[in-house]
Amino acid sequence: MWKNVEHIGIAVRDLSHVNEVYSKLFGEPPYKSEAVELEQVDTSFFKVGNTKIEFLSATGPESAIAKFIEKRGEGIHHIAFEVEDIHNELERLQAEGFQFTRPEVSKGADNKLVCFIHPKSANGVLVELCQEIEN
Amino acid sequence: MWKNVEHIGIAVRDLSHVNEVYSKLFGEPPYKSEAVELEQVDTSFFKVGNTKIEFLSATGPESAIAKFIEKRGEGIHHIAFEVEDIHNELERLQAEGFQFTRPEVSKGADNKLVCFIHPKSANGVLVELCQEIEN
Repeated sequence: MWKNVEHIGIAVRDLSHVNEVYSKLFGEPPYKSEAVELEQVDTSFFKVGNTKIEFLSATGPESAIAKFIEKRGEGIHHIAFEVEDIHNELERLQAEGFQFTRPEVSKGADNKLVCFIHPKSANGVLVELCQEIEN
Repeated sequence: MWKNVEHIGIAVRDLSHVNEVYSKLFGEPPYKSEAVELEQVDTSFFKVGNTKIEFLSATGPESAIAKFIEKRGEGIHHIAFEVEDIHNELERLQAEGFQFTRPEVSKGADNKLVCFIHPKSANGVLVELCQEIEN
């Protein structure tokens, strides 16, 4: 089951500039920042209602965010949906013919298990599935 | 005040194909479709949790969606935030230096007043502000 839009990911060049712009826009500062070494990104999180807005900037040239910005410029990078059982959904959707960027679940930012449907399978949208890791 | 992410807008070529793909993905069919003549678009709406996912296809070559797809292909087009008072927010943000695509509020899809912050003012993101029209 798909529960909600957990966050929207936006690729940017400079987090300090973004923090300034979006603090004005939303009328509130970001509530946290976090580095994700595996993905070579720094992140900054805002919240509007129940939805997180996650800004991502690259910390290395091999980061997917660096490649995205090089190709398309800054902009909306992915939508993340919280699902009830990420392993079941991965299996169900692979059987339906959806392609994933990696055919497995891995650990993402914000204490989540994540996997990504390739934009080719989803009308140009990078769809993240995520599930909170229970401690 | 910014209340929530009201919807995410996704530009696509063919709504019937999208309806098929995303019905499989979300496990549920779209709940409505609507034409917006002013914008030259047809739309199809899904809902995940409290957030609407709005797919838009162009019905004329002058549509912003046709131009977006020609330039960048299918993909995420905008994020729409519900605000408490759209006229106040437009005025406040213009005073802060944000550029809008049109310097006024107009009637959009889904019984909403809308205005759009230009991506140049918001790190490559087309930000929609919207407010339900009270009948």
